[in-house]
Amino acid sequence: MAAAAYELLVLGGGSGGLAGARRAAELGARVALVEPLRLGGTCVMWNTAVHAEFIHDHADYGFETPGVKFNWRTIKEKRDAYVRRLNDIYENNVKKAHIDIIRGYGKFTADPEPTIEVDGKKYTAPHILIATGGRPAVPADSEIPGASLGMTSDGFFDLEELPRRSVIVGAGYIAVEIAGILSTLGSKSSLLIRHNEVLRTFDSLISSNCTQELENTGVDVWKHTQVKGIAKSPHGLLDVTVSSAVPGHKPTEGVIRDVDCLLWAVGRLPNTEGLCLDQVGVQVDPNGHVVVDEYQNTTRRGIYAVGDVCGRALLTPVAIAAGRKLAHRLFEGKQDSRLDYENIPTVVFSHPPIGTVGLTEEEAVAIHGKENVKIYSTSFTPLYHAVTQRKVKCVMKLVCAGKEEKVVGLHMQGLGCDEMLQGFAVAIKMGATKADLDNTVAIHPTSAEELVTLR
Amino acid sequence: MAAAAYELLVLGGGSGGLAGARRAAELGARVALVEPLRLGGTCVMWNTAVHAEFIHDHADYGFETPGVKFNWRTIKEKRDAYVRRLNDIYENNVKKAHIDIIRGYGKFTADPEPTIEVDGKKYTAPHILIATGGRPAVPADSEIPGASLGMTSDGFFDLEELPRRSVIVGAGYIAVEIAGILSTLGSKSSLLIRHNEVLRTFDSLISSNCTQELENTGVDVWKHTQVKGIAKSPHGLLDVTVSSAVPGHKPTEGVIRDVDCLLWAVGRLPNTEGLCLDQVGVQVDPNGHVVVDEYQNTTRRGIYAVGDVCGRALLTPVAIAAGRKLAHRLFEGKQDSRLDYENIPTVVFSHPPIGTVGLTEEEAVAIHGKENVKIYSTSFTPLYHAVTQRKVKCVMKLVCAGKEEKVVGLHMQGLGCDEMLQGFAVAIKMGATKADLDNTVAIHPTSAEELVTLR
Repeated sequence: MAAAAYELLVLGGGSGGLAGARRAAELGARVALVEPLRLGGTCVMWNTAVHAEFIHDHADYGFETPGVKFNWRTIKEKRDAYVRRLNDIYENNVKKAHIDIIRGYGKFTADPEPTIEVDGKKYTAPHILIATGGRPAVPADSEIPGASLGMTSDGFFDLEELPRRSVIVGAGYIAVEIAGILSTLGSKSSLLIRHNEVLRTFDSLISSNCTQELENTGVDVWKHTQVKGIAKSPHGLLDVTVSSAVPGHKPTEGVIRDVDCLLWAVGRLPNTEGLCLDQVGVQVDPNGHVVVDEYQNTTRRGIYAVGDVCGRALLTPVAIAAGRKLAHRLFEGKQDSRLDYENIPTVVFSHPPIGTVGLTEEEAVAIHGKENVKIYSTSFTPLYHAVTQRKVKCVMKLVCAGKEEKVVGLHMQGLGCDEMLQGFAVAIKMGATKADLDNTVAIHPTSAEELVTLR
Repeated sequence: MAAAAYELLVLGGGSGGLAGARRAAELGARVALVEPLRLGGTCVMWNTAVHAEFIHDHADYGFETPGVKFNWRTIKEKRDAYVRRLNDIYENNVKKAHIDIIRGYGKFTADPEPTIEVDGKKYTAPHILIATGGRPAVPADSEIPGASLGMTSDGFFDLEELPRRSVIVGAGYIAVEIAGILSTLGSKSSLLIRHNEVLRTFDSLISSNCTQELENTGVDVWKHTQVKGIAKSPHGLLDVTVSSAVPGHKPTEGVIRDVDCLLWAVGRLPNTEGLCLDQVGVQVDPNGHVVVDEYQNTTRRGIYAVGDVCGRALLTPVAIAAGRKLAHRLFEGKQDSRLDYENIPTVVFSHPPIGTVGLTEEEAVAIHGKENVKIYSTSFTPLYHAVTQRKVKCVMKLVCAGKEEKVVGLHMQGLGCDEMLQGFAVAIKMGATKADLDNTVAIHPTSAEELVTLR
């Protein structure tokens, strides 16, 4: 069986793989993609929840809206259609770029040169990119009895109705986003977290404010809590047994009854099993992530990895950027082309949204020393809420380092922070100082202007 | 009558005067303010219109909202209360800063040293700041019969009910904002403009797109049109006679009948008459604007002016920034402290909002030459509209100059552009190049990310 030859083989249809494949094809390389991309649609659901928030405020803005009814199925169908459309567009773009699509699951063979086998057929190329992404983790039933009765973020997209009673387990951004959407849309929602606050890797301002906002919007946050077991309830739903252990207090057990949506958001696992990486000497770390250097090289020459499968900065645009940079390095001779993992901006689609880039205050103090770090922060009620009974504040923190007060971190949560961050991320990447922010005329009335008028 | 002595006298309570007064007081100066600030509240009305837009999309997002009713009076009362609250806060801040407030209208006297007289009492100071702002222009009845039957943006805020039939005259940002608000809230609205497009001083992408968006949202845009006269209609409303003269066509006359809101937004006039500026040798230009140099010095030593009264960049934050810079120069010995009028970002609260900073394409070509200007632009449907029947696109243009592709202009209109601009304005002020934008990781899914992935 002759191995079909390409210049680049992309294994797995993650965004980074797709982006790398397209850029390589544009640069003239012969490319094949094993399993193309499949997209989600969280943000459509976030926008739906934003509608629900607006409905809360209609009366304050002079609109009487009697008898509002929400139909989950309507938006689910629209979202599914949108995602199908997107996938078709992506697939068409791949075809237009003359990239071959090989359907099926690929795995490495024992051949002397790196080779991928798909359904018994072999493919090889001087460059092979692993972009198989990750998937949500679910605890084993042996660890938490009945754990497999729960769903993950994947299952969230398959829900045919708005759950009446939701329990979300986890404190990361996926848990925060889904708890926010479900609760805002009217599902009685509990969020179970192991510690005191959500988003514990974020700046302390964000973790504490976001936890507070979740509670403000009606999410029942169970702190210091772990799931002990899940059982089918007499009504065919789920009873979730939990144990809460506030430090210094006796642990208490409780049962959340008749849950129709138990959702695990306790981390993600890399899709590396089944790839037979050991056949080619590609090393993985103890969690199964592919080990790469700053140029996305794995431990085997000619094999690279980008995106979630590497376990660092699990964000679509990071994978895309890394994939493109790699294509430029391999097929345009740009030796230094690599993604700089510093100052990567992130938005969490919580209610209100979070924007963050750079170092947390804690990290900045550890790196620069407390005496060299200056913090500017503010908390205010955005103009939008000037006339509403529902008041959601906006919080912002600038972390500055050194005599020149270089901005090394920006953290904020509030209305509009999602669209607000990108430009500041450019300025921070350019090395902006506090003075650079101050020298820019404010745009009134916006929330963003607060960032250039901090004192 | 002895002249009460201050270190700084601020004449007129514009934002810039207030900001300058407060900063000067913080720096230790004895300050008096003649007539403190009075604020508007356009943005509350814009947010109200945003609610109306959301209501259009509710069904698309799965929300049934039968029988929506809008009550203008509710939001008017809330807005008025909010503006009163703001004014109280401002006044309190002035008092807390130990700034004396002198009620009444001030004018310069013929005394040898610059002196202001208020209600027969004289005040003097080594530094006097003119911050009397501007007011909307209304054509004279002698020029357009019945012109005085119309109102201006000031009258807009006094409207007790949503007008059923509105006619807005003007093509500037105030006309665009008010036409958008009235039309979106359900008033049948016509916008009369003298030329082919609104916002003619903006980049051509913005003028043409904004004109199109006004038409899309149901505003009846009368191009090449001027008002000939206004008369009381038999129903006690207004009949507006207009003449349209499309170039190359015969002019046509028409009457817009039973108008209950005729609003002039044809420019603003500086509040300089009555100040007796000639008494102190402060020069004004032919339009009555106070002539100032780049340090806000008027032609009389010791007298300065900031804000709309100078007729340049008529924006609240510009006046504020200029006032503060001046305070630092006068009372902190910072000789070079002045506002840089380049790259001032502006947002127009149209539907959708506009964000713009720096040179238009046309200006850049005039300055740098066509061969040295590179344009990057995009037009897309934001994710929010993926599932809505109402589709409002987002357009963006980057104007880059020179080999290094320095970003000299950014122009955009779309959902979220209001909060999006500030950070990019910082980057552009810092001298950002296209490469600086490209080197920043995109934030997905946002509209802002399109600005760092333009090709």
